Amino acid sequence: MQTPKPEHVSILAALDQETAEATPKGFSFAGLHSGVKNRNKDLMLSYSEHPAIAAGVFTTNVVKAPPVVLSQEFVAKSNAIRAIVCNSGNANACTGEPGMKDAKAMAEITAKALKILPEEVVVSSTGVIGRLLPMEPIKNGILQASQELSPIGFQNAAAAIMTTDTFTKTLFIEIELVSGKKVKLCGMAKGSGMIHPNMATMLAFLSTDATFEKSVLQQALSESNQCSFNCISVDGDTSTNDMVVVLANGAAQAELIEPGSENYDRFQVALQYLMTVLGKLIVLDGEGATKFIELNIEGAETDEDARLAGKTVATSSLFKTALFGEDANWGRIIAALGRSGAVFNPADVEVSFNGLPILQKNYDIVIKEEEAKRVLKERLVEVHIKLGEGSGSAKVWTCDLTDGYIHINADYRT
Amino acid sequence: MQTPKPEHVSILAALDQETAEATPKGFSFAGLHSGVKNRNKDLMLSYSEHPAIAAGVFTTNVVKAPPVVLSQEFVAKSNAIRAIVCNSGNANACTGEPGMKDAKAMAEITAKALKILPEEVVVSSTGVIGRLLPMEPIKNGILQASQELSPIGFQNAAAAIMTTDTFTKTLFIEIELVSGKKVKLCGMAKGSGMIHPNMATMLAFLSTDATFEKSVLQQALSESNQCSFNCISVDGDTSTNDMVVVLANGAAQAELIEPGSENYDRFQVALQYLMTVLGKLIVLDGEGATKFIELNIEGAETDEDARLAGKTVATSSLFKTALFGEDANWGRIIAALGRSGAVFNPADVEVSFNGLPILQKNYDIVIKEEEAKRVLKERLVEVHIKLGEGSGSAKVWTCDLTDGYIHINADYRT
Repeated sequence: MQTPKPEHVSILAALDQETAEATPKGFSFAGLHSGVKNRNKDLMLSYSEHPAIAAGVFTTNVVKAPPVVLSQEFVAKSNAIRAIVCNSGNANACTGEPGMKDAKAMAEITAKALKILPEEVVVSSTGVIGRLLPMEPIKNGILQASQELSPIGFQNAAAAIMTTDTFTKTLFIEIELVSGKKVKLCGMAKGSGMIHPNMATMLAFLSTDATFEKSVLQQALSESNQCSFNCISVDGDTSTNDMVVVLANGAAQAELIEPGSENYDRFQVALQYLMTVLGKLIVLDGEGATKFIELNIEGAETDEDARLAGKTVATSSLFKTALFGEDANWGRIIAALGRSGAVFNPADVEVSFNGLPILQKNYDIVIKEEEAKRVLKERLVEVHIKLGEGSGSAKVWTCDLTDGYIHINADYRT
Repeated sequence: MQTPKPEHVSILAALDQETAEATPKGFSFAGLHSGVKNRNKDLMLSYSEHPAIAAGVFTTNVVKAPPVVLSQEFVAKSNAIRAIVCNSGNANACTGEPGMKDAKAMAEITAKALKILPEEVVVSSTGVIGRLLPMEPIKNGILQASQELSPIGFQNAAAAIMTTDTFTKTLFIEIELVSGKKVKLCGMAKGSGMIHPNMATMLAFLSTDATFEKSVLQQALSESNQCSFNCISVDGDTSTNDMVVVLANGAAQAELIEPGSENYDRFQVALQYLMTVLGKLIVLDGEGATKFIELNIEGAETDEDARLAGKTVATSSLFKTALFGEDANWGRIIAALGRSGAVFNPADVEVSFNGLPILQKNYDIVIKEEEAKRVLKERLVEVHIKLGEGSGSAKVWTCDLTDGYIHINADYRT
């Protein structure tokens, strides 16, 4: 269940810890209450002293919010990103031309305050869909945030991108390169509902002082995303506003990370580690969730088949409610696997919960109901599913479906 | 919302009504408590005096219960089906070779009791997955049911196939053919959870005294299924045991229904009408549902795109919980449409709830929150979604996602 930490990676700080030493060089952050929400922080600003290379992955939903469209364009075109601005409480989605105007204005206001160019600003919004942004508080908020930027503003920043989240999701790590030099990487993420990434996923902003060429950074991000954020699901709904952006400003003055090199592998593995930890924190904070579920799919024909199988189980309402009921209802797992599209022979499937065998080959049902009840009382449930087909594997993370989820989402706008 | 009744169709009886006159000629039915369940009816038998042509659609889940495998084979091979036997309370799914032996035994016991051949018996089971059938009560139940067969046993029969259903789902209609002769068609269906048909769907057994060739009956069934049972969703989970079987015994002695004829159209339209009504009853009885939702997708590029869009909205947990909360959260509709794969321009989308415009083109949000609250208080909610792309359309039926659903499924096996 613990995410295995690569040896060349050190954790500098996590969750609510923060020090200036843990922050990658040359980055500063701020987060404050501007007035988009009634209370709570709702405006985040991050800034790089030096021009930074940027890479991003963005929602594959056909309906993309204006800030997503704008930021995707900026990240693709630009060779120097300097800032990220993000508000929570309002997604600026399904807002048409006026929404695009507001997204551009957010870039312009930020650029003016920081004396940079608008196209050097990544813009992001999260919250309710279909309402125009209140631009006056946002403008004032950006101006104030630009005054408050600090290497120890990260926790405030991470708090300001939350919506229904109940805690901030952050991690600071250090990566030792081949030369012995060290680079830092930190990330914040948000999300607890409308979480079902497809290629890109909810909001995460990552900063590193490593040195990269743009295409190489993009490759590392896309590769890491596939088995981290793309393997979590809270409720099967893919957001209109998902984005993950990483900035690399080279301020550690370490060697350039070349494609195909040992350093590339070290960085990519570390990036995937950080993204996996943040992704799992999102699931842990899933709306209404009482259980964190790790699905380990093994013996699939391919890794892709394993992910397909895992994601189908992870989105089955029946499986997720059974776990809420602490019911070892493996039949619902098998039924979900059967509609997943993954190739397997049902009679070869094996299932265990937290190490307790439930089902073995040839439908040999070895479940001991009393013991199953005991292991399912745990908050963390590790499900192993062996398909007996090949050597493909995947991990997928999800949570249970509870009456808490229903109430959070039945009452969201009111 | 009302399913439009074709002119040449008369309703003879529905729900708990029943008369011998409403039943297609030559069919008799029984339903009783055999002991698979603790209480309540759990064994259904239907019988045709005359050899009947059969057609069927079966679950596309890779994991097929033994009775599904067996019945699919019998229906494909045979030119004369005489009986359908079905137990509820135990799905005989994921039971391997012993499960197949039990399914065959059900056919053999039924055949012996009715003096017909085992391959003339369609076998079906529904209920908990992964437990072997208790064959002693099933055997005694079949023997007793064979003694109780009656043209007015249909309501008992329909009750005996229920699991978490709260009412029986039946309809008896009469179809006027071109010659002026009339044929009867009746159907029973069950299902209220694990409902997300894909090609075939939950259990439905249909009987008609019309005269058919096998391939033509199969064509009429498959065609009717596409826009009826295949367009309902309760929870997005596709069962391992779904089947729809229709028997046509020709006992009305009306003309043979030829492919491509006016009579074919009359029968197919009537069959689709009956299947649509039964499908909508399943949704109305959806586990924990407090609202029945009809999604009308219009202006899609193709009918297929319209179904894709409708089914994605119908399975969105966020949309379904919003409806439970009586919240006109159209943003969740747009977000679901956006990940559906259907082709459309988001700015062209229009949405209305029970005739009240919510969203017009170019994200013109015309929602009046007070009026929206009022129309969403209705038990029946008709959502119109116009994609502005072409002339493709579809209707899809679903229900809200409630804490009732969570509790039914968290506690199902205990």
